Amino acid sequence: MTRMPLSPTERSTIRRDAQRARTDRAALDAILDEALVCHLAVLLDGAPLVLPTTYGRDGDTMYLHGSHEARSVRCAAAGPVCVAVTLVDGVVYARNPKDFSMNYRSAVIHAQPAEVLGADAKLHGLKTVIEHCAPGSWDYVPHPTAEDMSWTTVLAVDLTEASVKVRSGGPVDSAADIAAGGIWAGQLPLQTKWGIPIPSPDLDRDVVVPGHIATRR
Amino acid sequence: MTRMPLSPTERSTIRRDAQRARTDRAALDAILDEALVCHLAVLLDGAPLVLPTTYGRDGDTMYLHGSHEARSVRCAAAGPVCVAVTLVDGVVYARNPKDFSMNYRSAVIHAQPAEVLGADAKLHGLKTVIEHCAPGSWDYVPHPTAEDMSWTTVLAVDLTEASVKVRSGGPVDSAADIAAGGIWAGQLPLQTKWGIPIPSPDLDRDVVVPGHIATRR
Repeated sequence: MTRMPLSPTERSTIRRDAQRARTDRAALDAILDEALVCHLAVLLDGAPLVLPTTYGRDGDTMYLHGSHEARSVRCAAAGPVCVAVTLVDGVVYARNPKDFSMNYRSAVIHAQPAEVLGADAKLHGLKTVIEHCAPGSWDYVPHPTAEDMSWTTVLAVDLTEASVKVRSGGPVDSAADIAAGGIWAGQLPLQTKWGIPIPSPDLDRDVVVPGHIATRR
Repeated sequence: MTRMPLSPTERSTIRRDAQRARTDRAALDAILDEALVCHLAVLLDGAPLVLPTTYGRDGDTMYLHGSHEARSVRCAAAGPVCVAVTLVDGVVYARNPKDFSMNYRSAVIHAQPAEVLGADAKLHGLKTVIEHCAPGSWDYVPHPTAEDMSWTTVLAVDLTEASVKVRSGGPVDSAADIAAGGIWAGQLPLQTKWGIPIPSPDLDRDVVVPGHIATRR
């Protein structure tokens, strides 16, 4: 399948630190698949509103969901929206304050979301979100009822208009600062990992942690 | 010092899952002081634009900074903005898809940023950002020169109009789903920690990792 290169529009073209821009579509997918939450920005009475929310990706579509009564969901459905997905990999300690930086992988998507209608399509969107946040859960728990679905709005965000920015590695200090010496320079990685599952206090003792939770990496 | 309770305005009042709202100011400070980056939403040609960026907090002010040429900085200075600071603490596995959730601590701030003018005030804002991202670094490296400062815009965001939302603990399943049994329910914590410092390849071997980096927790 041929995929569009990224950054096709004016507003999704990276200008600052342009050497950090990635234009391959695989870089976008990798960030979306690794991160857990996104930050969804919408317009509310002409001002920006940004909230963290869960999501899932299937091919060229990012799915969002929420209560059909939620203000952020209504604003997102009315569009336009901007969605950021960010992985912070560490702090870059330089020899000079102006060269301090962060290591990160960041995706920013501009879109006009479309509400997903039709029972099957909506169920697929919700499955995509659940499987992103809690892989293996969709077929472990009962599927949502029609009544549950009636309370949920699922939105589809097209990933065509997106930009990706990545910084990695140590500081880029000036030759003069390097020559001056005496100051430690490098990176301090930030690591995220899953802890030990904590059973609900109301759980029967004979229910063991299933593999999709126990082995999550 | 008396501090305003949070959520004083219509748009910063939490409606969804209102039991998760926190109205004490200390909850806001704690989230801002623990997180590393924020997501800054601005208006760009009438549409929202959201980007991750670093920040720092001093009292009732959040400082942002960036190149004076950066589009996001110019849009933020023109305001209004919305800033989200999010800590993701884990995934909540329920017995039913509708009860799946995330554990998180989240702050959302609405403001009209003010550009920080005056050399001393601007230096203080930049110090606040550097000390947030890399505590102990401000007095370890040389201070910025006047020329460096001339390329930097520092913005002050007032923390008065903010909301805080916190979810913790296990799933809240229905009595029927609990009674049905057989499905594991609980939480999978997500943990973030600092790794081992990685020296820059151009670092002299006799420069040791300073305590403020080696002992960062």
